Order: sequence, then C-alpha cells, then structure tokens
Amino acid sequence: MKFIKTPVKGMNDFLPSDMKLRDYVIALIKETYAGFGFSPIETPCVEHIENLSGRQGGENEKLIFKILKRGEKLQLDGDVKEEDLVDSGLRYDLTVPLSRYYANNRNELPSPFKALQIGNVWRADRPQKGRFRQFTQCDIDILGDSTNLAETELILATTTLLGKLGFRNFRVRINDRRILKAMALSCGFPEDSLDQVYIILDKMDKIGLEGVIRELEKAGYADGAIQSYRVFFEDPDEGRSCREFCGGRLDGYLAPEVLDGLDQMTGCVRAAAGAEFDIVFDPTLVRGMSYYTGTIFEIEMAEFGSSVAGGGRYDEMIGKYCGEPVPACGFSIGFERIIAILKDRGFEVPCKVRKVAFLAEKKLSDEKRIAMFREAAQLRNEGTQVMIAARNKNAKFQKEKLRAEGYEEFKEFYRD
Amino acid sequence: MKFIKTPVKGMNDFLPSDMKLRDYVIALIKETYAGFGFSPIETPCVEHIENLSGRQGGENEKLIFKILKRGEKLQLDGDVKEEDLVDSGLRYDLTVPLSRYYANNRNELPSPFKALQIGNVWRADRPQKGRFRQFTQCDIDILGDSTNLAETELILATTTLLGKLGFRNFRVRINDRRILKAMALSCGFPEDSLDQVYIILDKMDKIGLEGVIRELEKAGYADGAIQSYRVFFEDPDEGRSCREFCGGRLDGYLAPEVLDGLDQMTGCVRAAAGAEFDIVFDPTLVRGMSYYTGTIFEIEMAEFGSSVAGGGRYDEMIGKYCGEPVPACGFSIGFERIIAILKDRGFEVPCKVRKVAFLAEKKLSDEKRIAMFREAAQLRNEGTQVMIAARNKNAKFQKEKLRAEGYEEFKEFYRD
Repeated sequence: MKFIKTPVKGMNDFLPSDMKLRDYVIALIKETYAGFGFSPIETPCVEHIENLSGRQGGENEKLIFKILKRGEKLQLDGDVKEEDLVDSGLRYDLTVPLSRYYANNRNELPSPFKALQIGNVWRADRPQKGRFRQFTQCDIDILGDSTNLAETELILATTTLLGKLGFRNFRVRINDRRILKAMALSCGFPEDSLDQVYIILDKMDKIGLEGVIRELEKAGYADGAIQSYRVFFEDPDEGRSCREFCGGRLDGYLAPEVLDGLDQMTGCVRAAAGAEFDIVFDPTLVRGMSYYTGTIFEIEMAEFGSSVAGGGRYDEMIGKYCGEPVPACGFSIGFERIIAILKDRGFEVPCKVRKVAFLAEKKLSDEKRIAMFREAAQLRNEGTQVMIAARNKNAKFQKEKLRAEGYEEFKEFYRD
Repeated sequence: MKFIKTPVKGMNDFLPSDMKLRDYVIALIKETYAGFGFSPIETPCVEHIENLSGRQGGENEKLIFKILKRGEKLQLDGDVKEEDLVDSGLRYDLTVPLSRYYANNRNELPSPFKALQIGNVWRADRPQKGRFRQFTQCDIDILGDSTNLAETELILATTTLLGKLGFRNFRVRINDRRILKAMALSCGFPEDSLDQVYIILDKMDKIGLEGVIRELEKAGYADGAIQSYRVFFEDPDEGRSCREFCGGRLDGYLAPEVLDGLDQMTGCVRAAAGAEFDIVFDPTLVRGMSYYTGTIFEIEMAEFGSSVAGGGRYDEMIGKYCGEPVPACGFSIGFERIIAILKDRGFEVPCKVRKVAFLAEKKLSDEKRIAMFREAAQLRNEGTQVMIAARNKNAKFQKEKLRAEGYEEFKEFYRD
C-alpha cells in the first residue's frame, strides 16, 4: 500500500523549533494557573457519539470526526445509515468532556473545583490560514462558585499569563447576558426572539450599527423595537461603567446586583492586575455559545483581528448532566492564536542552558570512549545539555548545523 | 439524546492527583532527554489509513480506531465495504508517525536527529488491568547515526531517567538480531524460518527451555537443528559477555564487529551510568517487531513482571519511506507502566511550593475585596500558590478538604 508523507489534511507536524515555543507556553500556562489554584485534568480525546451530538446544536457538531464501530457491532448489510456505523468521535471542544468529567467524578473533586485542561480538539473544518483540523485548546473553569470571585480570578489569571508572555495594551471586554436580555426586552423584542437578536448584534464588529439595524429589519422585527434598540448603541463611548451606560434605562428589566457585580469585578481586576491592559464594559459583546447565563468576557489584541481568549458564566449546563445545580464559569484561551502571534512577533524562548556538542571520531579506543561518556555524564549532572555525535569528515559544516541548534561549545574526541 | 457520564470504554479521566504524577514524570522525561540532546517533536493523532494499514502486519493493525469519511466522500448506497468508508485512523504507535514525519521534514532536521515524542496512541484492545484503549507512549529515537554511540546514549539517557524516578536495581537486557540469526543458521534452521523461530524463542520467559523445544518440534523442524539450538540456552549464566557466550560457535555466521560493538556499548554504559542497575547480555531476548535489524534491548524491573522500556536498531524502516537509507535506533518507554509502578510504590511528587487559601466571606466591601486580591497578587508574584474561594458557613469542613489538596495556611476575610 502506498505511503503518504504529508500529514492528514489540516493537521500539523511540529518541528523542534515549533515545539520549543509550544512547550514553553504550555509550561507557563501550567505554572501561572497553578499560582491561582487551578489543577490540571485530562479527559480522553474520544467521546461517546451521544455526548457529542445534539447538545449545543452549533456549527461544531457538523464537524465531528466520527469513529467507526468495530467487530460484530459494525453491520454493513442492508440499508446502511451513518448513525448506525459510529459509536464515538473525536472531541470538538473541551467543554463537553469537562461536563462529563465533572458529572462522573464530582464526589472526588474539591468545591469549588478549579480546572485547567490543555488538550487537542478536532474539527473537520475547511483548513485555512490559522485554522487547523487538529489544534490545541486550553480551558480554565471554576465549577461550584456562584460568586464573582470566580470571574475576577479567571480574568486576573489570564491577564497575568498574557503579561508574562510579553503582551501589553490588550483589552478585556466584559458584558452580561442578563444585560443583553434586558436591553432587548426593554425595547419590546419578544422573549423567543432573543437568540436571533443576539446573533445579529454579534455582527456589529463586521457590519457596523447600520448593518445590524438592516438585518433586524430584514428579520421582520417591529420598527419601534429596532429604533429603541439603536439608541443603546449609538454612543460607542468605551470609558463608561455598565452603570453609567444603563442609566435608568433597564430599570424593571434588570436586577440591580448585575450592575453592582460587573462594576465590582472590573474594579478588582483594575486594582490587582499585574499586567498593563484595559478592561471595558462593552454592551455589544455577545459570545456565540447559547449556554452562557451571566457575565461574558473576551480578550482582544489590536495586532490580531479577533479575540485571543473568551468565556463567561454558564450556570445551567453542568447541572443538566449532573442532576444537581452547579454554578460554573470558564475561560477558553486561543492557544494556537497566541502561538501564531508570538511567532509573528519573533518571540524568543528564554533559554539559559549551556549546550555543548561532543564530536567523536569513529573507532575511538574503549578507553577514550569511556572517558568521553564519563565527561558527558558529569556535565549533564551539572545541568549542561550535551549532544554526542559521530564526527563527520566535514566537521565544519556539521558544527554550523549544530550552532543553528544552539550548540555554542564543541569538544572533539580523536582516535589518537 | 442521553448523556453518558463514564468515559468511552478503556479510556480514562485523570483526576488532579493523577495529573500531578503524570505531569511530573513528563517534565522529568523532557528535562532528562534534553540533557542528552533530544528535541521534542509532535505528530497528529490522526494518520492516513494507508499509512496505518498493511505495514508491520502485526496485531496493532487489527486494533485501529478508524475514522469515517465525511460529506460527499461517504457513499452509503449499494454494496458498502469497510475500507471504502474510512480515510484515516487514530495512530496505534508513535513509530509510523515518526517515519512519516522524518520522510516529510528531513530537509529541515539536523543529522543525527535525536527525537523525543510523547503522545497518546489508541488500540481497540480488550481492556484489562493496566491495559487501556487510549494511553500515553514515550519514544526516543536517533535517526542518521549508524554508530553505536546511538545505542549507548539511548541506554544511558533512559537509565538516567529511571534513576531520577528513584528506581534501583533494574536490569537492562541486550542482544542483537544478527546474533539471533547466526545462532539459528549455525544450527541449520532454514533462512525463511527465522521469524517463526524467533517467535517461539521469545516465549522462553513463559514456557521455559523445554517448552521452546517442544514448540520447535511441533513446528516440524529437523531434530538436529533443534538439539544444536538447545545447547545455546542450556546454561543461563547471565554474567557472561556476548563474546564469552559465543566462544567460537558462531564463527562464519557472525561478523566479529557485532560482538565488539555489543561489548563496547555494555562497557561504556557500565562506566558512565549515573544509576544503579545491571546490564546483561541475554541471547533469548527477541523483541516482537520484525523491523529490528541490529542491537535490541529491554529494561525490566523485578517488581513489575514484564519490561518497562524496550527498543533497538531498525536501519531499514525509515529508508523505505524516505527513498534513501537512514540508520535508526530507538527506545520506547512504557509510560503507563512506569506511572502504575510509581503509584503502587506510593511515590510522592516532590513539591516545594507554599500553598495558601484565602477564604472570603460573602458581601465583602469593595475596599476589603480589593485589598484581598492585591495581597494574593503579591504572594503569587513571590511564587506562592494562592487559592481564593468564597468562605462556606462550615469553614471547618472546607478547610479540611483544602488541607487534603495541600493548602496548609489559611487567611479569612470577613465582612466587618
């Protein structure tokens, strides 16, 4: 059978230079979130097909890599249907596995449970620049904390991480699903139209306010509702607190503690942040997934069009799987985007290790050979990285290549 | 659709306590092999079905998790055959992906190329104690070095790793496929019977010498060959060098440099080893895979029946995929076995981090709240791990649970 040298479409081989950066960022993620009390967890890459299908109803479910049944369970006679052929699939996010994990293991987990999950996910998406079919996601979640300590910690931890990676002047946008709901209801949009209204509002970045208005009109909403809605977004002043933004406009539609909470989080984040960044209230922030129930947030960098991290509170999802209510709040970090930005910026991984190459001529005597390995062992014990290789006849070229790998010292071992 | 709480059969959820050990061992693996000049690489978990099937012909190929084609490529009308339904599968080892990786990227890789690959592999095996359907493998390989510096470095690096994990008195068994061949041919076994003879010899551990003899007889080999073969294995003296073992018995069947090489590696490993272990020549060592061409080795621990690591030289495999000869030698470490042994031994991950829990009463004033987050930030900056959580009414129970997670200091923040 033929052998195919390139990776499967949309998936990547990582060279040592790629790995150096990826490993560095992963180590920094683990270290930073550990400082905030997050514990790493791991779930299988393969999930029951039942758990992957018919959940969030979103685009992701169309993109599942499905796994064929095996042995007698695979029936190919008669009328064959796709759903009868598969029993599992590759996870397309880390949220479904986290829900299953918590439902399965909650008796053994602390409360609140602060989880860090770094792992690959798969989507049979059309590959394009920066979008892959296998990619690493990094999710942090706090389960079992209904207070806004959770949101504050998630934002502080994530901005601390970005600061350690050398990012400055990024922007945290924050909003609350309950404010989105209050705005729409106060204008007279019917309760069952909320999801569609949010989807249209979410396009503000791309099509502007006039575009949003046009789409609401096209969807057939009442003119009065649309005109009232417009007023909320006409003044894009970003300096306002959510309380200033709302004024009294949402009275009767919004519990006052929502505004208190948002202002409180924003204040704490500003006061305790270790990095330089803005945190702004943004009434146009929607976040795609329908499972959010409260605060939502996103981090964006001017250098990179879209967001590098996003998340929010989703108090109802985990409970559906557990059978008891579990408040939850999480942040998903765009690991691949962060790697791409760091590469674009020519980020250099800090490396303080001494690297020495030993080049051994062929047919070295046993005595010299043993002395060489002993010397290498001694250096390695002291923390030096030692590469032992057979010395090529053209050692000049060999050394050049080793220098490119970071070996700056050489020691040659000759036969006599 | 129903939601299934347990993981897919044979796959694992890892709790924070599991992850602590796994992350520690992985970090130690990376650090140790880096000291020997190994660079981490990563390949996709999904491989072309063509690359997974019809290669080594072994058991692994029967155990592939196959991935269904998508969209128009999936044809379910008419006579449906399994091979037409799939285009890829989950990798069952790291060797096939390494071969593809090297063939695809060799112009950008140094020579020799010393690779460390840690990743999950999947086998639809019958799950049993210690055998999983998703498990982590750890392979180190040196490509492009035909000298026995490669074998020596692989064994030194791997025994150094085991020593750092606290293992003592393990045993490295070493042999050479060319010695196995010379033994069989010198006894008169026909050349085309070698694979079967090796498979039978490989059972020595389980069925003993008499069992091996019986199976050779049952397979119909000539009595003279079998009786000559028996003589090689009658004296199980493990102290002998391979030269002492062979005496003059293999003259004419074996190139003398094979014995020189084995003795040389053994000597260097003994002289430069940082850990306490035995390295012994074992003429009954076979290693299952048919791709080995020279030295083979295995590390076993008395505490755990079978081997914890194994490998050898496979000079012909990579070349088949590259179109040019590439000498290669590798070691595969039984990551899950090592984890299981460490757990059995009650291994404690060294941890020197100070861990403090802040317990905040609900409705803390903004001022107190900000002071708390600032204090946490300060401590985190200094390397302390700080967990912030809402204080339960029953803080005694809460503290007990936090103590179990390693938090030994507590600070409580009250409303007034």
